Amino acid sequence: MYIYSNIIGSFVLSKELKIIDSLEFEDIEDYLHKYQFENKLQERHKNLKPLPDYRERQMLNLFNEEKYLEQFYKQNLALAKHKLKLSVTEDQLIIQTIANVQELDRVINLLSKRLREWYSLYYPELAQNMTHHEKFAEMVATKTRKELLQGKTMGADLDDVHVKQMTLLAKQILSSFALQKEHKEYLKGVMEKYCPNVLELAGTTIGAKLLELSKSLKRLALLPASTVQLLGAEKALFRHLKTGARSPKYGAIFHHPIVQNTQRKDRGKAARLLADKLALCAKLDFFKGEFLAPKYKKLLEEKFNVKKD
Amino acid sequence: MYIYSNIIGSFVLSKELKIIDSLEFEDIEDYLHKYQFENKLQERHKNLKPLPDYRERQMLNLFNEEKYLEQFYKQNLALAKHKLKLSVTEDQLIIQTIANVQELDRVINLLSKRLREWYSLYYPELAQNMTHHEKFAEMVATKTRKELLQGKTMGADLDDVHVKQMTLLAKQILSSFALQKEHKEYLKGVMEKYCPNVLELAGTTIGAKLLELSKSLKRLALLPASTVQLLGAEKALFRHLKTGARSPKYGAIFHHPIVQNTQRKDRGKAARLLADKLALCAKLDFFKGEFLAPKYKKLLEEKFNVKKD
Repeated sequence: MYIYSNIIGSFVLSKELKIIDSLEFEDIEDYLHKYQFENKLQERHKNLKPLPDYRERQMLNLFNEEKYLEQFYKQNLALAKHKLKLSVTEDQLIIQTIANVQELDRVINLLSKRLREWYSLYYPELAQNMTHHEKFAEMVATKTRKELLQGKTMGADLDDVHVKQMTLLAKQILSSFALQKEHKEYLKGVMEKYCPNVLELAGTTIGAKLLELSKSLKRLALLPASTVQLLGAEKALFRHLKTGARSPKYGAIFHHPIVQNTQRKDRGKAARLLADKLALCAKLDFFKGEFLAPKYKKLLEEKFNVKKD
Repeated sequence: MYIYSNIIGSFVLSKELKIIDSLEFEDIEDYLHKYQFENKLQERHKNLKPLPDYRERQMLNLFNEEKYLEQFYKQNLALAKHKLKLSVTEDQLIIQTIANVQELDRVINLLSKRLREWYSLYYPELAQNMTHHEKFAEMVATKTRKELLQGKTMGADLDDVHVKQMTLLAKQILSSFALQKEHKEYLKGVMEKYCPNVLELAGTTIGAKLLELSKSLKRLALLPASTVQLLGAEKALFRHLKTGARSPKYGAIFHHPIVQNTQRKDRGKAARLLADKLALCAKLDFFKGEFLAPKYKKLLEEKFNVKKD
């Protein structure tokens, strides 16, 4: 006699492949602990052997009945839902967060440009002297024009009711900045556990960006260093392949201090070596290896004389 | 003897056009009250006549001296600044505000799409059932999944630390909605004084949009009704002129209830009559006419059987 389990239950089959005994699963939890059901059947009957491979096809006919079809459907759906539930990993949380950090960049730019134009009706000199968006919004949100004014202004003397709307917009911009910072703090926390090596060497934003571009730590770990180097530069890469334009030297890692603080002519080299070590870091993190990133970082910084900030 | 004033002062000139007496202006305020200076000179000298036109050219040579050039430069600059200060009108305040209302539309869309994707890791069913962005953000911001949950969810069981970031984003979206409402309230207040007829007939958003598209109430008042009808449909209009595609029937006024609540086949007609009355309203507002908009509104609503909401 044989013992056989599928998604809807555990079955004891005779030599002629008739169902002699069975325990059906109530839900997906039962299926995940099917060995308990099989043990019970083993106790009831003796000398149960697993179904040999060559008889599997024959066995399938057994379940070709209406009453089983619905059970299969129900259990399969439940299994899919269960797997979907488990499929949410740190990868996806990191990807959504870094995507929103970038979304907020767009929002801040959009609203800051508007605030500058609007506030210039009232105090045009400020928008000119203050090029940093966050500082500008902070000035507008927290100080009156009188407090800010240096010398005379060409701006109109507007009533408070008009200025208030600009102040509210400035506050909205500041809260976008605050949310972005909050997201970055959170990202750091998640990545410290999930991919400490990548975090250490790449930093929060670039590290998360690399995960976003490669879709997961697993895929990032499997990518060759040359691909890591160009992640985020796909547009320039394909232009290079298509039109023979110059090949790109870096993608998302362009903003990394090791690339940024290196002289122009050595940047390609710096990017190559950085990508090399980043690819290693991703492998270390995915296969739960040691924490070697600080060593790599020191090595690269010394090689390219990057001052720490 | 002649009396003559320009931007730097008032002068008494002899018949041979030599400067006999003068009062120079200290700043732009003096220039704006030049008649006071002219009066003083009139008292000192008698029988002063204004400089006749045919001698003006000759007079210009008088000021062709180094010492005057700097004064001219200084006073002209001051005058330009003064005019700039006065040039900020309700038009510009309204235009900036409605522009930011639309900017916030973009922001809300951007962030809401992100929130839906992100929150779907946790509770995918909610994003499907709740299509309204504001309600969705409100749910996420104020309720826990447990409170929201109807039946089971395919979403992952995430720790609070992860969910918190989504909640913060939802709150940011809600505050964008709140700012938009604040802007609209303010717009209504400004327009009640500045263009009550346009406000009454077009409503806050469409009224402000028409001002934005026409650049000012003055220009809007001078536009023919047919142009008012198509303000905001420039792209479609030029496509029509260039390629012979169908001509647009409405621009910004498309969203007006009188157009919206009219049957498709009558919409062109509704738009034409509405634009007609709107052009009248703009003229009434610009030339400080009566408040006739309610009459026009009633007339149009009756003609097209629009129910009031």
